[in-house]
Amino acid sequence: MELMGNAIVGQSGGPTAAINATLCGVIRGMLAHAPSHRLFGMRNGIQGFLEGRMIDLTARFTLDDGKTPDESALRALTHTPAASLGSCRKKLPSLDDAAGEETYARLIELFRSRDIHTFFYIGGNDSMDTVAKLSAYTQRVGYPMVVIGVPKTIDNDLEGTDHTPGFGSAAKYVATTLQEIILDCSVYTIPAVTIVEIMGRDAGWLTAASAIGRVTGGLAPDLVYLPERPFSMDAFMKDVRAALTRHPGVVIAVSEGIRFEDGTPVGASVQSGGQATDVFGHSALAGAGKALEFAVKDAIGCKVRSVELNLPQRCAGHLLSAVDIDESLHVGEAAVTAAAAGKSDIMMTIRRRSTEPYVAIISHAPVAEIANQVRHVPEGYINAEGNNVTDECCRYLAPLIVGETRPEWVSGLRGFFRFD
Amino acid sequence: MELMGNAIVGQSGGPTAAINATLCGVIRGMLAHAPSHRLFGMRNGIQGFLEGRMIDLTARFTLDDGKTPDESALRALTHTPAASLGSCRKKLPSLDDAAGEETYARLIELFRSRDIHTFFYIGGNDSMDTVAKLSAYTQRVGYPMVVIGVPKTIDNDLEGTDHTPGFGSAAKYVATTLQEIILDCSVYTIPAVTIVEIMGRDAGWLTAASAIGRVTGGLAPDLVYLPERPFSMDAFMKDVRAALTRHPGVVIAVSEGIRFEDGTPVGASVQSGGQATDVFGHSALAGAGKALEFAVKDAIGCKVRSVELNLPQRCAGHLLSAVDIDESLHVGEAAVTAAAAGKSDIMMTIRRRSTEPYVAIISHAPVAEIANQVRHVPEGYINAEGNNVTDECCRYLAPLIVGETRPEWVSGLRGFFRFD
Repeated sequence: MELMGNAIVGQSGGPTAAINATLCGVIRGMLAHAPSHRLFGMRNGIQGFLEGRMIDLTARFTLDDGKTPDESALRALTHTPAASLGSCRKKLPSLDDAAGEETYARLIELFRSRDIHTFFYIGGNDSMDTVAKLSAYTQRVGYPMVVIGVPKTIDNDLEGTDHTPGFGSAAKYVATTLQEIILDCSVYTIPAVTIVEIMGRDAGWLTAASAIGRVTGGLAPDLVYLPERPFSMDAFMKDVRAALTRHPGVVIAVSEGIRFEDGTPVGASVQSGGQATDVFGHSALAGAGKALEFAVKDAIGCKVRSVELNLPQRCAGHLLSAVDIDESLHVGEAAVTAAAAGKSDIMMTIRRRSTEPYVAIISHAPVAEIANQVRHVPEGYINAEGNNVTDECCRYLAPLIVGETRPEWVSGLRGFFRFD
Repeated sequence: MELMGNAIVGQSGGPTAAINATLCGVIRGMLAHAPSHRLFGMRNGIQGFLEGRMIDLTARFTLDDGKTPDESALRALTHTPAASLGSCRKKLPSLDDAAGEETYARLIELFRSRDIHTFFYIGGNDSMDTVAKLSAYTQRVGYPMVVIGVPKTIDNDLEGTDHTPGFGSAAKYVATTLQEIILDCSVYTIPAVTIVEIMGRDAGWLTAASAIGRVTGGLAPDLVYLPERPFSMDAFMKDVRAALTRHPGVVIAVSEGIRFEDGTPVGASVQSGGQATDVFGHSALAGAGKALEFAVKDAIGCKVRSVELNLPQRCAGHLLSAVDIDESLHVGEAAVTAAAAGKSDIMMTIRRRSTEPYVAIISHAPVAEIANQVRHVPEGYINAEGNNVTDECCRYLAPLIVGETRPEWVSGLRGFFRFD
């Protein structure tokens, strides 16, 4: 149980509120299980690394003796949202592409210069593609390298894992914010429709999370639409009218990626003016929420408003799921023990043993089976009408948002970790 | 020190995250200082009251003996956002309007039926108008009535008070969320501009709060634009270009109400297509953030995004300022002691004695001097260029967001108070 040499870790893809907890897990794992080896961090993922930008994380997160963990810095890092090392969206070239050879050769040169033989990459779908390619290349050229992907994404759309680190905190933010919006929309007596647009282009997991309150005795939106089901404007208007007969403050959750039967995004196609251009003559489009706002205004005529939850869904470090942060940390730490055990070409995964009570273990799966795939919300988690999720879905999601963390607050604002 | 008879309390105007803390203060005040009198609550403010809809709050918030405060319910109410009694936007008719006589007569009839001689109204500008009119009418007809306004608004734009209950929590939400967005926008290396639109049509207080982190050693937006200064597109583009030379992830805070020199709202007028209509042919307009997003895309061509913070600014009950909740409670309680002392025609106010250390006391001012006025961000709180707030402004705002509350969480979601 020993690493071959030094290790490097990178963060890639969109930020989440838990991606630094996973980084913290990798650092803690290295300090605990491979104290004689150094851990480097890529600045801005594989892209910054190719430019030679890296940082000695072992030095940064230990006290002057170079061994004792700097608990204060590690705690701050755990609760800091967004990727502290910086991120990138770079995809490595295809292995069959001769023009890409230079990139790979440069990587090997950089690895060799720091005696790096373990590579951890924290990211989503595209990042697992990088992991798979790098693994294949190092094997082809005979460079000894352990390559391990560590999942993160608020989209919860990776195959091979019960759920993804980062999703639980985003889900808690969405479910909590939806309940607050529902309270806000219940204070007046005039009929009003509020449409909340939630992140998720292809998979509706995060939008589904808006309904968790239903199985925990709390508030949930009246209607929920996911991209997994084709969207029908007629059925939608019927649903909205029915909801308005039940109470005046109707709240609806929609995924940004909802599409009509023919595949057209709802955000792009609802229009009465002809062209899909905006006020300013741009072809950039209104989102699904805004499109439905105008459609309801036209068809029903009541007060309508749309709310796009936007960036805070993935970076609200003030509202973290304790279960998510705990798992995110452990997934990072387990990546180090897996590397020390000689496992490679894998992505760390979470396996659920039981939902009530919630029990999950950290495991792993071959990364080649996972990269470039999307895990959708299954049929059985959406109701027959396609206008809400099932209780079974809510029960699956509920354990992932349990528990609050106690991050540091300084003078009324969060105290974040930042590299110099 | 005794009330004349029973009392009634109502909530009016837009919800805030602290308006129920003030309601809680009024209830606690009545139980403590006027235990022999009942407190009624109007459902949906003066509008629901005119329909005879009210609730016995004394019964609802005491145990079976009718006297001992139900601490559990009161604690839950304190941390529940939005107006639990329901709200309205109704303005009372002018006293000179003969057609309004019927409304006032109906009010007196309702007051008499429950022996109500004290009237508490929790609200903003329009609500203080109701307080002033009701006070004048009851005096004219000789109905003995103590009328007291209790301020609430996230806009912080009421005259006569250092700041308004509800503003501190909204300011904490805005400042915290901006810092998280700044972290999110700092992970990539490509130049990108993120424009965050913050509530405030006429007064820029809440937008100013986005910069508080600057004086507490934390993160703050690069540029801040308030409605108090005319907006110049040329100066703005110059500011943005300059900010992009300093770092790639530029974050800008703008009030929804920013206007050009000639008074045109920025949201309404920036367009290249001619008409101020949207994609769908509606005359409803893009907000200021969206308008500037397209303007920057046109003029600079870098990646641009706009984020509208929207409803969560006023209803994020999961992120409350302890100072704000504490003051909101005390303002409600002090309204009862003021009523018992025979004060009337007043609005409760907060007077700041000192900023460092922060010391404030509860006081009151004649409501007639306050109603229908707007308190703007003063000249000295905005820098000479009009593209940011001054440190003095940040230091004024900083104490109002200090401290976190510990609201109840159940199964990962907030436990709210709700009337049946």
